[in-house]
Amino acid sequence: MTDVDALPTPAVVVDLDVLERNVARMQERASRSGVKLRPHAKTHKSPEVARLQRSAGASGLTLAKTSEAEVFADLGFDDIFLAYPVVGDDKARRLLKLADRVRLAVGVDSLDGARSLGGAFARAGRTLSVRLEIDPGFHRSGVLPEDTVALARAVADVPGLELSAIFTHAGQGYAAPTPEEVARVGAEEARLAVETAEALRAAGLPIAEVSVGSTPTAVAAMSGAGVTECRPGTYVFNDRSQVALGSAAPEDCALTVIATVVSAPAADRAVVDAGSKTLSSDASRPTADGYGLVVGRQTRIARVSEEHGVLAVAPGERFRVGERVRLLPNHACAVVNLHDALVAVRGGRVEGRLTVAARGRVQ
Amino acid sequence: MTDVDALPTPAVVVDLDVLERNVARMQERASRSGVKLRPHAKTHKSPEVARLQRSAGASGLTLAKTSEAEVFADLGFDDIFLAYPVVGDDKARRLLKLADRVRLAVGVDSLDGARSLGGAFARAGRTLSVRLEIDPGFHRSGVLPEDTVALARAVADVPGLELSAIFTHAGQGYAAPTPEEVARVGAEEARLAVETAEALRAAGLPIAEVSVGSTPTAVAAMSGAGVTECRPGTYVFNDRSQVALGSAAPEDCALTVIATVVSAPAADRAVVDAGSKTLSSDASRPTADGYGLVVGRQTRIARVSEEHGVLAVAPGERFRVGERVRLLPNHACAVVNLHDALVAVRGGRVEGRLTVAARGRVQ
Repeated sequence: MTDVDALPTPAVVVDLDVLERNVARMQERASRSGVKLRPHAKTHKSPEVARLQRSAGASGLTLAKTSEAEVFADLGFDDIFLAYPVVGDDKARRLLKLADRVRLAVGVDSLDGARSLGGAFARAGRTLSVRLEIDPGFHRSGVLPEDTVALARAVADVPGLELSAIFTHAGQGYAAPTPEEVARVGAEEARLAVETAEALRAAGLPIAEVSVGSTPTAVAAMSGAGVTECRPGTYVFNDRSQVALGSAAPEDCALTVIATVVSAPAADRAVVDAGSKTLSSDASRPTADGYGLVVGRQTRIARVSEEHGVLAVAPGERFRVGERVRLLPNHACAVVNLHDALVAVRGGRVEGRLTVAARGRVQ
Repeated sequence: MTDVDALPTPAVVVDLDVLERNVARMQERASRSGVKLRPHAKTHKSPEVARLQRSAGASGLTLAKTSEAEVFADLGFDDIFLAYPVVGDDKARRLLKLADRVRLAVGVDSLDGARSLGGAFARAGRTLSVRLEIDPGFHRSGVLPEDTVALARAVADVPGLELSAIFTHAGQGYAAPTPEEVARVGAEEARLAVETAEALRAAGLPIAEVSVGSTPTAVAAMSGAGVTECRPGTYVFNDRSQVALGSAAPEDCALTVIATVVSAPAADRAVVDAGSKTLSSDASRPTADGYGLVVGRQTRIARVSEEHGVLAVAPGERFRVGERVRLLPNHACAVVNLHDALVAVRGGRVEGRLTVAARGRVQ
């Protein structure tokens, strides 16, 4: 077995002990709340991690894109929810094939989108399970609360579709300035989701699942009475933003990047061989402040270009060319999508690879 | 042949007519200036595009990482400069193998880095051609002008290395507020590079090549007397930032993304199926302002998450779910690195694929 110190850099490494602990802990939290855990596999895109989640008790997987579902179906995962407003007859035809071998549900947030999915299923005499996305204040996709009942009725009437669930994603939690505020966002998300489900039931729609999601808001949202499912993703690896948001401690970060200092031309500046092609250029949350931390040092990555991470060297610190450093990236999901495989490590020794099987599947 | 309107979305498409015109034009500009063109292949990572550049007259390729050079060497490209401070004995051993089949040069900007490369070559009784990176004011990697002569002398004395060139990258041109200011940065880069080369020659170092680079500064920098080589990359595709910087017109943008509107929950907001996994989250230059434009509309992409591009719908415009739109991304190089292949299009018809053969090669 290779020592982690012998890996060529940059290397994206995952500490298996931390990963396993993270997977077990979130599952325990969900089980304690009586909520099904359906992790968002976008974070890892990896069959090895998805199997860990399934063994721990996950009820199924969440993904966003049809092509991601195809990858995980090929890998033997048979219960998938696409938490995304999938649109288009070409996608519907692919979903129809997927539904032969997978227990499938798909997000909708518009009547036009719903109709574009229903056609292929109706023509085949089949039914696609759809879940209505409700906007809990993030203002990305999702129907506005005031339009929900009318849209739900219309979607339920689309031939080929069956509406039996709603889902929310309170991404505004990533902008909340304190852990208390993050928890408040999660609690409010749960309240809105449950209230919406009750309004739909009162309108005669059989809403069986109330699904909420995101790692920072998960604990607060799962504890809302009436919530039945939660879809966090990042908790498996965690990252600098999760630590800043209070949803993980530094020792809960399973994914780091080992890099080499390749340039140190001035006392206040050094360059590592990991730039945006390794770390992504995603901003840190809740406050944008560079592109990652150097673990065990005060120095942070102030700028990235594709292959350069420029360290703003903190006073009293020094980096020498050839030195290896460990970086904590801002956003683990974005890092994973840049690499074909992650290096699996336990106790400083390489144990194998985690395959990023669904990397780059955007369609 | 498929019509471009029938492609599943999101799709990254390259207009071959525009690409070929861009390749020819930059080559003409270099030839007119009497400067060798060694394009940075990081933009396309693609043998098909590199062959176009070679056919047009490129003297060789520029790349950053050892693994990228290995990919292009396997594809039959035999003249490669790694414009990057490559560091480490493991990399040196790989470069030694590459040097068997490729005319190779590698960047250095420190004595420690140079020594880490020289060892493997000296032990094998071989010589690696190195080029000293000079910082022309970008303050990323590159030796500071005042340290250059001393470092060059020391590098030239490292066994296994031969120092015969210098190179610069004036990335600060990307922050210049006007095209005139961009040109001034390029002219200043050339002045500094030539002056530095002369100082090194006066110190007895045989500097044969003076290499400058970057698409926005290329025209101004190539016209500097004494510059022998230029290394622009993005010019093959161009992007929103190149248009904003004045180095390309909108009709010079060969790479765009075709996306579908998947959500339109409010009059001022719509969501397309291309987020940071398709477009990257790189900022626009010289001013950070969202994540791309909708071609032919006033609307821009205000926010991205991994699979969502959130449009801030301009007054008077409207986007309907299911509608296809064409997006101009901020940074073409970053987009390309997210995809295994680009769709090659001519006159609205699909002609084939451009393989992103060196995608994700960060080591």
